[in-house]
Order: sequence, then structure tokens, then C-alpha cells
Amino acid sequence: MKAANIKRFIGDVLSEVGLTQEDGQIVANSLVGANLRGVDSHGVTRLSIYVKRLGLGAINAKPSVSILDESGATLLIDGDNGMGQVVGTRAMGLGIEKAKRDGAASVGVRNSNHFGTGAFFLQQAVREDLIVFAMSNAPSTMAPWGGIEPYLGTNPYAYGIPAGKYEPILLDMATSVVARGKIITAAKEGRDIPAGWAIDQQGRPTTNAQAALDGTVLPFAGPKGYAISLMIDIMSGVLTGAGFGSHVNNIYGDFDKTQNVGHFFHLVDISRFMPIDQFKSRVDQMIEEIKQAPKAEGAEEIFLPGEMESRIQLQRLQEGIPLSPEVYGDLRQTGLEYGVDLEQYLYN
Amino acid sequence: MKAANIKRFIGDVLSEVGLTQEDGQIVANSLVGANLRGVDSHGVTRLSIYVKRLGLGAINAKPSVSILDESGATLLIDGDNGMGQVVGTRAMGLGIEKAKRDGAASVGVRNSNHFGTGAFFLQQAVREDLIVFAMSNAPSTMAPWGGIEPYLGTNPYAYGIPAGKYEPILLDMATSVVARGKIITAAKEGRDIPAGWAIDQQGRPTTNAQAALDGTVLPFAGPKGYAISLMIDIMSGVLTGAGFGSHVNNIYGDFDKTQNVGHFFHLVDISRFMPIDQFKSRVDQMIEEIKQAPKAEGAEEIFLPGEMESRIQLQRLQEGIPLSPEVYGDLRQTGLEYGVDLEQYLYN
Repeated sequence: MKAANIKRFIGDVLSEVGLTQEDGQIVANSLVGANLRGVDSHGVTRLSIYVKRLGLGAINAKPSVSILDESGATLLIDGDNGMGQVVGTRAMGLGIEKAKRDGAASVGVRNSNHFGTGAFFLQQAVREDLIVFAMSNAPSTMAPWGGIEPYLGTNPYAYGIPAGKYEPILLDMATSVVARGKIITAAKEGRDIPAGWAIDQQGRPTTNAQAALDGTVLPFAGPKGYAISLMIDIMSGVLTGAGFGSHVNNIYGDFDKTQNVGHFFHLVDISRFMPIDQFKSRVDQMIEEIKQAPKAEGAEEIFLPGEMESRIQLQRLQEGIPLSPEVYGDLRQTGLEYGVDLEQYLYN
Repeated sequence: MKAANIKRFIGDVLSEVGLTQEDGQIVANSLVGANLRGVDSHGVTRLSIYVKRLGLGAINAKPSVSILDESGATLLIDGDNGMGQVVGTRAMGLGIEKAKRDGAASVGVRNSNHFGTGAFFLQQAVREDLIVFAMSNAPSTMAPWGGIEPYLGTNPYAYGIPAGKYEPILLDMATSVVARGKIITAAKEGRDIPAGWAIDQQGRPTTNAQAALDGTVLPFAGPKGYAISLMIDIMSGVLTGAGFGSHVNNIYGDFDKTQNVGHFFHLVDISRFMPIDQFKSRVDQMIEEIKQAPKAEGAEEIFLPGEMESRIQLQRLQEGIPLSPEVYGDLRQTGLEYGVDLEQYLYN
């Protein structure tokens, strides 16, 4: 289905649920942007749960995002329990202004919700020739290393680096072996997951997607992934005054509570270190040296972070976004509850 | 051997090679501090190569560390090719002042050298109630994911978080499966290394420590470790104007060249987000929740980053630092070249 059409559909549904046109577009851009980059786990499949929480008042459709505190180099922002994409976009906008004015900005955000992909926010900052780090905590689905009970989220970690001749470098990864969204997608589609991704409620390895969702996702690289996830939770949750550890509420339950997700952004104005053109040509040189390096057996190409996603995007912009029957049905059902029929958007 | 005695020995040797008393103490504290925390790969075993480079003029014994540029939230520092520990300590000191004044500091450092452990710098900032990230690039020993030729360093990544009742959380890790220093130690001691740590020059898995040093260390978690290592090199090397990728020179060769290592520090003043006591009690709560979590089979305890190292330190402060005959011999030889005999320091 054409990206532009799905965006219009999502914007219209969110409008019916109470978001402003502008905020609906932000969420639509984030979700469809994820699908375009091949990150279907964070794409339109999330619409139904967002709409459910908005409908129940567990997310504030019209938040008033505000600055709680500001110093020469920091910002503390209250998201007023708005959609994570909306809160994150406002916070990133304020951080971008600040970084350009003061050289860098360390931005903490409390009272937010699931913010979709980190890459979405990176693009906002990289366009402005800033280096950007974005992180968020998430409901607990991962045990500390050595434990069996979920405590940390799969807390994502993203960075963006502007390049010159080439696409910006955009890394966006979960601190689990895989994004939990991929397990959610597998469960929705009734597929098994590879061994090594998760353990079940009793701490046994499992390939059953539903058992994995009931159990615990494993951190990447064992203790190292655990440590990075912990750091992200401290910056996003403990420092900002948001929830942390098991005190971030579940997006798929806890419907009478706000999630109280926290985010942390670090923005750096490159021009305070060297002229932006010089930086970009150094990044280009690095990209070229990596792309031209000798390959391992079986590796046809060496990729930069975000490069594969950017190729998928080119393809999907032309050919449209493939929606599985399950996701299509789920989307259509969600829209129909608010009088918006996905079928009407199929061809225009 | 008693930590205090080794420190005196190292200080005296470095003094003979041209460092000031103060700078010699900084390096001694870093090296012996690493041994105390059980990180022997970054401890006194490094003295001989430092002394060799200092003696040949490949490291500047009396650097004039200076601020090249400053904005409201950033600092760019030139290390004047001094010892990494010395340059890093000055840069961290300037960053700490700035973070306290302006709320946060993003500090880039160029023209530096191997800086020892990241944990050493973390301690400096955590004492001042700051959150701290420290990273450095390193000579290329790791291929980009999919490649076989070293391009990136094992670029270490460290963070420190102040706690209240408990020890601060101190993570210090290489972006390789293991710190290359551990392979160097194994090679020095003629031991094999576990499978999965490295590939040889032809790209084949190896357990021979020397073959691994001639070949390529593997990043942790494959593409994720590669991506994080890349990010560290961009911040530490590309952005600061230091060397990057294969343009950071080898500490164990390239004796006619400076290393041109770069570092990047990010310091955050907690009090700009919430009162420091509130933050510390939130960190304490998190630590308690993690320590009390149900354990996996075979796990007697769940550790926070840095907790094991801090226990080893307690023990080694009392019992002394165990030095293998190889390391002892190497140390003694290094000292004798400058008329300083390690034997004289054994008992007092």
C-alpha cells in the first residue's frame, strides 16, 4: 500500500481520537517512516494500541509539552502524558534550538509514552547538521544479567551522524538481542522465533513467540547489553523523574495508568569542533574506507548503520509498503471503530 | 605487592623519563588503580610501552594541554601529545568545572595517547556528583562487521553514575568481545584464548593469542558492537580532529609517529534535573530492586556494573596486587633502564 495513503489514513484516525492535525501527522510520519525503513515492528502495527490508550484516556491526546527547567546546557521537559512521538518531536525541536545556540544540549523528558523508533528523531536533528543521541526507557521485559524476572526495558539507543556525499549514519537498536517489537510481530503472525532471543516465565529458552512475550527478552552480549540498558534507564528514567525499572507501565496493559516513559537526548553542534564541511568530508572518507575494506567470506558488502534501511526505503517509496493480512485487518478494524475505512485509502 | 609501593615505583620511573611528579602520580594512579580493580590488562603491564614511547619522544613527557575552542556547552581540547592519563585528567577537570557552571559539558580531545581505563576518569567526575560518559578511540584492531581487515579500535565506552548508600555504578567496557589488553596479557603469559574472541590474519577463528593479535578482534554482539565502536570513533576521532579508523597509530609500533588518539567526554550536572539527594535515593532504590531480584539457576548474585571490580579492590588493597613473574620481570627491567630497581620497593 502506498506510504502517502497509509499516512493520510493514520492522520485521519488520530484526528478522530482527538489529536490535532499536526500531531496526527507526526505520529503518522513516525509509524509509516518505520515501515518504509523496513522496521515493521515499530510501524503501523502500533496504531491499534495507541488508539486504544488514547480512547481510554491513558494517553493525553492534546498534551501541553513544557520546559520545567533550563540551564546553559540542559533542558528538562514535561511531556504531559502525550504521545511519545509528539512529545519527543517537541523536545527534540527545543533541543535543536538550544544546541545551535549553546553548542550542545542534554535534554531529559518525563511523562511521555512509547515514542516509536529512535531513527525518527535522529532524522530531525541530522537535517540540522547536528550529531544526535536519542534514548528511551520502556516497560520492563528484560531481566538484569543473572536474573529471570523482567526489570529493564529493551531500552533503545540511537545515534545520528551527518555525512556529506552519503546518507547520514543512523543507528537505531534495542539493547535486547532483538527488538521486542519483532517478537510481537511474530506472535501476531503465529510464527516461531529463533533460539537465543528470549527465555520463558520459568527462565527456560523458548522459540514460542507468545511464551517469550510472557517471559523475558535477553540483552545483547549478556552483561554488556544489560549494562547499556541500565544506563539508558538511568538517563531516561531515574534522572528525568519518569518511571524506571519495573515502574514504567505496560503499554499493552495498565490501561488505568499512564506509562510515564522517559527519554534522554544529547545534541552536539558540530561547528563548535570543526567547520561542518570538514567534518562531513571526514565522515565521507570513513564511509568510503569501510565500504572498500576487504570482505569476509560470504559477506558481499559491508554496511554502515542505517544503510540497509535506507535502501529498503527507496524500494518501498516506489513499490509501496507490504502489509500482512493480519496487520491490514487490524488497521482496518481500528479505523472502523472511529468511522474511518482503510479500504477508502487503498488507491488514493 | 602493595599498591602504594608499586605506585611509588611507577612515579619514580616516570619522573626519570621526564614527567613532572604530579603527572607521574596521575599515570601511577591509573595503572595501579586498574590492577586494584582486577583489570590487569590495563595495569602496570603497560608501563614498559609507555616508557619506551616517552624515551623515543613518541609521547610528549611535558605536554601543555590547552583549550582550542569553547562554547556554552562544549570544549575542544588539544592534548599536545601527552600521556593519555594526563591529558584525560586535565580535560576531565575542565569538563567538570564547565558542567558545574553550565549544567553539562561535551568535551572533545585530540592529540592524545592511550588513556588507560575509562573507569579512572569516571571516578574523578562521580566524586563531584556528576553523571559521566567517557570514550576513546584506539588503534585499529577490529574489522567492520562483514570485513576481515582491522579498521576500528576496540574503542572503550565507560559511564559513571553516583549512588547514595552504595558504590557508584561504573561501567567500563571495550566494544570488542573482550578488551584487547586481555589478549595481550595472554600472549605475554603464553596462554590460549577462548574461541569467539578473535579471527586470525586470514579471517579464521583462532585460540592462539599471538595469532589473534596479528589478526582481528571481534566486536561484541556482531553488528551492534561494530556500530557502537563506530560511533565512539566518530565522536572521539572524526569530530575532535584526532586520528580515526586506521589513522590512529599503533602504540606497539609506529615509534616515529604520534598516536593521535582522541577522547570524548559528556558530563551532566544532576542538580539541573532534580535535587542530588533525590537522584541518589532513586539510584539506591534501583540498585536494591536489582540486587533483590530472583536469580537464574547458577547465578548466586546479580551484579551492578563495577561492583565486582570494587570487591576485588577491597581485597587487593589489603592483600596486595598479585604480579605474575613475567609482569614483575618486565616491570623491573623497565625500571632498571632508568636506574630505578623494583626490588627496592618490595617491602616499603
